[in-house]
Amino acid sequence: MSETDELAGLSEEERRHKLRTQKHKAVVDARIATAKVDKGLLLVLTGNGKGKSSSAFGMVARMLGYGRKVAIFQFIKGKQDVGERAFLSRQPGVTWENCGEGFTWETQNRARDIAAAEAGWEKARAALSDPEIALVVLDELTYLVTYRYLDLDEVTKALRERPAMQHVVVTGRAAHADLIEMADTVSAIRDEKHAFRAGVRAQQGIDL
Amino acid sequence: MSETDELAGLSEEERRHKLRTQKHKAVVDARIATAKVDKGLLLVLTGNGKGKSSSAFGMVARMLGYGRKVAIFQFIKGKQDVGERAFLSRQPGVTWENCGEGFTWETQNRARDIAAAEAGWEKARAALSDPEIALVVLDELTYLVTYRYLDLDEVTKALRERPAMQHVVVTGRAAHADLIEMADTVSAIRDEKHAFRAGVRAQQGIDL
Repeated sequence: MSETDELAGLSEEERRHKLRTQKHKAVVDARIATAKVDKGLLLVLTGNGKGKSSSAFGMVARMLGYGRKVAIFQFIKGKQDVGERAFLSRQPGVTWENCGEGFTWETQNRARDIAAAEAGWEKARAALSDPEIALVVLDELTYLVTYRYLDLDEVTKALRERPAMQHVVVTGRAAHADLIEMADTVSAIRDEKHAFRAGVRAQQGIDL
Repeated sequence: MSETDELAGLSEEERRHKLRTQKHKAVVDARIATAKVDKGLLLVLTGNGKGKSSSAFGMVARMLGYGRKVAIFQFIKGKQDVGERAFLSRQPGVTWENCGEGFTWETQNRARDIAAAEAGWEKARAALSDPEIALVVLDELTYLVTYRYLDLDEVTKALRERPAMQHVVVTGRAAHADLIEMADTVSAIRDEKHAFRAGVRAQQGIDL
């Protein structure tokens, strides 16, 4: 079909829309054509806003759509009942590990927090060397590095040496510069507004 | 247990940690005590970074953990196979609607895009008046408002008049100021780094 045929019978607005979107498509197609690499990605989701852990769990849902294996390590947070664990931990192919004793201000015990972090990290490290696991979620890992509960070099080494096609999502506020540096994708989630500050408590299915 | 007993036998560092976390706990507890409201939240996830839709799907996983109903409307995106649909659409309690014909630069047809948007919105509006549905996801809705495919006032009216306990997540870049204004929680996801710009194409289980 010639360009004249394609544009015949269109209103001026429709014609402009078509020409603009054709131009846009050329740009997008050119960009897509240059992106040919497949690799295991390291994604860091940081910042103070709502959506870091939930984004990680959304990627878990995506990965389960391909029937692949996923391992989730939830650091820091304690064993309170949460919807994501209730739902995801019963899915075939999902390994769910609670590696925390609760927030630092709940445990108030640095030695116990460190022991929990180290025990969790040992299990995470095993997942990070298993090429059958397509996605490893290290939820709230950033804090363990910031608080020096885990050795930064040991963490980055395990991430660097993982299977080439394995994806890893790290979540948590204030991610260390070295994690950001080595990541393939980094999203900083800014807290523009949060219902909690308007007096709304954590809601089932949204916050937990 | 008196404070002296509690701190007995602790090293100086452990003692400082305990006192600091006790103080932190008092602050957190006081904040939690003021947050007593339960309500259906409107969450807007915007910005250019990775994690808006995946965060919405993570909340879907959370909500399914409580056995509640969820309705997902995926605007804009076409019917390409994606992991989130493969996995979530087969879960009990989930309604999944594809309401898009593909990106504007793919369809290149404004009239068809508008027709798809309006048909999708009609279905979404039905979900927004059904109190049995605990969570409604309006994925990529922001664009429909920005492009004027849907009337802003009609969208905000349906959101305002929805069941009091129903949660809604709206995703998409450049959310309209009126949506941000009426939202309870707004996260702006900044794109600090994206693997695509380093030549990595969209990865299964992460991007689609």
